[in-house]
Amino acid sequence: MAALKSFIEVRPDSHFPIQNLPFGVFKHRPSSLPRPAVAIGDYVLDLSEIALAGLFDGPLLSSSDCFLQPNLNKFLSLGRPAWKEARATLQKLLSSTEPKLRDNASLREKSLLPMSEVEMLLPIVIGDYSDFFSSMHHAKNCGTIFRGPENPINLNWFHLPIAYHGRASSIVISGTDVIRPRGQGPPTGAPPPYFGPSRKLDFELEMAAVVGTGNELGKPVDVNEAGDHIFGLVLMNDWSARDIQAWEYVPLGPFLGKSFITTLSPWIVTLDALEPFTCDAPKQDPAPLPYLAEKTSKNYNISLEVQIKPAGVEESAVVTRTNFNHLYWTITQQLAHHTINGCNLRPGDLLGTGTISGPDPDSYGCLLELTWNGQKPLPLNSNTTRKFLEDGDEVTITGCCKGDGYTVGFGTCTGKILPSNSS
Amino acid sequence: MAALKSFIEVRPDSHFPIQNLPFGVFKHRPSSLPRPAVAIGDYVLDLSEIALAGLFDGPLLSSSDCFLQPNLNKFLSLGRPAWKEARATLQKLLSSTEPKLRDNASLREKSLLPMSEVEMLLPIVIGDYSDFFSSMHHAKNCGTIFRGPENPINLNWFHLPIAYHGRASSIVISGTDVIRPRGQGPPTGAPPPYFGPSRKLDFELEMAAVVGTGNELGKPVDVNEAGDHIFGLVLMNDWSARDIQAWEYVPLGPFLGKSFITTLSPWIVTLDALEPFTCDAPKQDPAPLPYLAEKTSKNYNISLEVQIKPAGVEESAVVTRTNFNHLYWTITQQLAHHTINGCNLRPGDLLGTGTISGPDPDSYGCLLELTWNGQKPLPLNSNTTRKFLEDGDEVTITGCCKGDGYTVGFGTCTGKILPSNSS
Ligand SMILES: [Ca+2]
Ligand SMILES: [Ca+2]
Ligand SMILES: [Mg+2]
Ligand SMILES: [Mg+2]
Ligand code: NI
Repeated sequence: MAALKSFIEVRPDSHFPIQNLPFGVFKHRPSSLPRPAVAIGDYVLDLSEIALAGLFDGPLLSSSDCFLQPNLNKFLSLGRPAWKEARATLQKLLSSTEPKLRDNASLREKSLLPMSEVEMLLPIVIGDYSDFFSSMHHAKNCGTIFRGPENPINLNWFHLPIAYHGRASSIVISGTDVIRPRGQGPPTGAPPPYFGPSRKLDFELEMAAVVGTGNELGKPVDVNEAGDHIFGLVLMNDWSARDIQAWEYVPLGPFLGKSFITTLSPWIVTLDALEPFTCDAPKQDPAPLPYLAEKTSKNYNISLEVQIKPAGVEESAVVTRTNFNHLYWTITQQLAHHTINGCNLRPGDLLGTGTISGPDPDSYGCLLELTWNGQKPLPLNSNTTRKFLEDGDEVTITGCCKGDGYTVGFGTCTGKILPSNSS
Repeated sequence: MAALKSFIEVRPDSHFPIQNLPFGVFKHRPSSLPRPAVAIGDYVLDLSEIALAGLFDGPLLSSSDCFLQPNLNKFLSLGRPAWKEARATLQKLLSSTEPKLRDNASLREKSLLPMSEVEMLLPIVIGDYSDFFSSMHHAKNCGTIFRGPENPINLNWFHLPIAYHGRASSIVISGTDVIRPRGQGPPTGAPPPYFGPSRKLDFELEMAAVVGTGNELGKPVDVNEAGDHIFGLVLMNDWSARDIQAWEYVPLGPFLGKSFITTLSPWIVTLDALEPFTCDAPKQDPAPLPYLAEKTSKNYNISLEVQIKPAGVEESAVVTRTNFNHLYWTITQQLAHHTINGCNLRPGDLLGTGTISGPDPDSYGCLLELTWNGQKPLPLNSNTTRKFLEDGDEVTITGCCKGDGYTVGFGTCTGKILPSNSS
């Protein structure tokens, strides 16, 4: 069989070939309504136009208004069969052998817009956002930095996917500026505590699972069915102020050290598009309790990279290269654990993986680890180093999966640091 | 001046005299749309009918559709001047000397419904819910129980109102059953951890501030203006599974030990109605940092009580009597702290106070403290004691302020424990 190919030209290194078709929400002009889309090469395909043209002709979507909404939540709530139907319909419609859109100039004109001309928006309304702590390398490094090398990882970590509730209101789309937060930091010696702009501003390289279908309050999701509740993945930068976090987090966990902003990449790559890139999950020892024991435990081979570009500098410096497959707890275990107490998830909820660190020092997912809490400055180029982020720094996360002759990618997740407000 | 009096008869011990007029949302029949209301005596006043009759005739509300919404969020977003206008309009309309509603039988028929005939709903869409830890007695008791009597309160507690992000999806209205959560608890001696229905299910007596107007991302709220961002208060039961919480909470804080359910009372009592019951806040030593220093620091004199009624028993047992004025950090300090890092609040967000414990053993706000982590069983009646909650127990929180000849009350916040699902 020939490889699937679109009538739209897609550069070989594009993140968005016909094999991907990630879902997002865009606005064409400032006054336009937000509309669902998929990415194809350098274009977005407006799904509201495709729906209005009657081209979603499968049994689950033909009479749905889910693509006439300002976000993807309604589409997500329809479940995996509808997601698969949409994907199959769009792959056919965009393929080089299918004339319906290819040969309809007026519909092409209306529905295919250059990505450079549109503004991407948060694709989902996020009811709740939880952030896990699923990389053993990250847990070990943080424990060693803060508590020393003896037993750096707390015993509970090996038995459950540790997580905390995050802040939903301050989740923003890639490209949004990051104002350096102010707050309290640990006192230097005696009280009072430090107060002012954070002096230890950091990024955290993460990905997040977007919940598709939810569950009822009081009804946990079986770990072997958890995959059907996950629509797809995005890149996430869980910006962190390490000084604020260090001073506030005992005993109730991170709060203002995290809640000032969290950045998402705009395109949700579906688990269906990621299926060719599954790999074995790491062996878990001790064996997980029965409610976390999966018949098939899947991880994903996704290469991840973080770049920092200081203000006024042309070239970005790559500061870390790692892979999603370093995670110890799978996203399906995370979701099953989240609901085991009866907690209800809703379409559009976000489950962050936690910082994705690999085993090697150049694969750590945040500056806290890369600079060992500021003790080892990290060279960015011949005359610049970083302990933590400085004003003007632009941080970009990228990620992709290499297929046979194509790439399934996530685009970028980026944000630039602005100085604290003087107000 | 004669006391303000309504043409509707209000029993002297009612929580809902004309001086209160708390806001809620109700449904008359299962098929009706949810509609905003105020409580007056044993009635709810349907604000959509009052709006449709053109009786909100003030400049801010006369052309607003905020009372034709299924929740109060739009009304909350209008800000304190609109809240004051609504209160003044309704107090006049319901007063014994005002004929507009009193003498309009058809409008009375449509708009005044017996409370016993309606179903109360969550009055707000809650974007984010944060839970503070503002009672020093509670902090001290928990610290003593878990870490011993030396330095039971962590140093940071005295410098900032500690809080964590809670779960918004599982917030329910008073009267919703509470399914005992399952989950992991600490191993007994050696691993594996305990797994099963929680054996340490607890209530937490709290109140919560409902955010009215929000703030923009990156723009902190000044502590002296924070009061204008708070619409009112509700009762809250932050149900807690102490065994799940104990095992999971290091290092990222409480998660599944809290997220299975949180119960709110249906009526939001406005800060305007509570104004006669303000009192001085406790002296804070050390002095708070400038961003938390208030020109006037207010607390509220609200008597609070918790009752437990075991299955098959007629009489409830009062297990604690305490007061909102025991809180160390004020709700305005909580709100200002929450935003100091730039975090944005939205209308309808919820800020829980944390468990409200007083200084005396019969004023502790949860069973963890009342039974000293199960070591001292609490007598409910002559032949029943409790270490933690048992299946069938119904827990009811009430709260009120005693005025001169009237009571401004919060109604009740109740929930009954059902056994864990066997599924
Ligand atoms: Ca994180
Ligand atoms: Ca609490
Ligand atoms: Mg964050
Ligand atoms: Mg709770
Ligand atoms: Ni072939």
